[in-house]
Amino acid sequence: MIKFTAAILISSLLLVGCSNSDKPNSTAEIVSQPTFDLTVARKEIEEANRNFMDFLSKGDSVGLANCYSDDAKFMGPNSPEIEGRKNIQTVVAGIINSGATKLDLKIKDLWGTEALLAEEGQLTLSTKEGKQVDKGKYIVLWKKEDGKWKLFRDCFNSDLPAPMSK
Amino acid sequence: MIKFTAAILISSLLLVGCSNSDKPNSTAEIVSQPTFDLTVARKEIEEANRNFMDFLSKGDSVGLANCYSDDAKFMGPNSPEIEGRKNIQTVVAGIINSGATKLDLKIKDLWGTEALLAEEGQLTLSTKEGKQVDKGKYIVLWKKEDGKWKLFRDCFNSDLPAPMSK
Repeated sequence: MIKFTAAILISSLLLVGCSNSDKPNSTAEIVSQPTFDLTVARKEIEEANRNFMDFLSKGDSVGLANCYSDDAKFMGPNSPEIEGRKNIQTVVAGIINSGATKLDLKIKDLWGTEALLAEEGQLTLSTKEGKQVDKGKYIVLWKKEDGKWKLFRDCFNSDLPAPMSK
Repeated sequence: MIKFTAAILISSLLLVGCSNSDKPNSTAEIVSQPTFDLTVARKEIEEANRNFMDFLSKGDSVGLANCYSDDAKFMGPNSPEIEGRKNIQTVVAGIINSGATKLDLKIKDLWGTEALLAEEGQLTLSTKEGKQVDKGKYIVLWKKEDGKWKLFRDCFNSDLPAPMSK
């Protein structure tokens, strides 16, 4: 009987002991080891892109710059990379001043983990009146800063032919 | 005494039971759950980049195209994306024919996991005679195909100003 009870006890404890690797048993573990769900991340990136488009349409360069991480790189075409949120704010203010404030961003694919997401997407940029200024594609690397996804590397280019010298 | 023995037995079994989650106990598990080392991955990407540069300098469009995954996207500037290794071969053959075969690729940073790597890098492209044709930056997403890292998304652009219409 003692043997039998011990066997049950051992089995139960083994189950309890090993379930630790699957289920966090404290708040601290939940915080440090969240389950990563790419479907949820996709919705979060869709929302981040929506905010980005909204800030541009409102001409809010501070809001736009805050979509980037503090150590972000804006890797646009025909210009060296622009590093850091503060410098990026100057660039986006320039885009706003050019009148191209209607941006459409569309996720084509998304990969990665909680540490870093890679987004492939397509963009169209137009004036407020709807005149298309650019159409292109991008890879954006996203990382979390203060719990929110921020653009960390923003590399894009145009699908349109380069202007030709006459 | 029985209680004491049972307690030791329980402790030992708990240790054995739970060690399974940390240490793979079969070759199959070692194969399916390798430890990912980003330093090793960086050396592998450096080698992959070296091969890429070598194929270009030799004018080997087949070798170059094989650096890309079967489902890769070549996301170059001023052109829509080119999808698939076969189509990419046509593009790289065009670059070879243009005479720009001296490429220098330099990793600036690398992130990711065994499933997907994201590389930030800089490039210079010159003719065989050393005349610089382009200087730019890129984000390349790498994935393994048949155990080798292949370019999966190749998004780049130029640091140089766009040619101006006169």
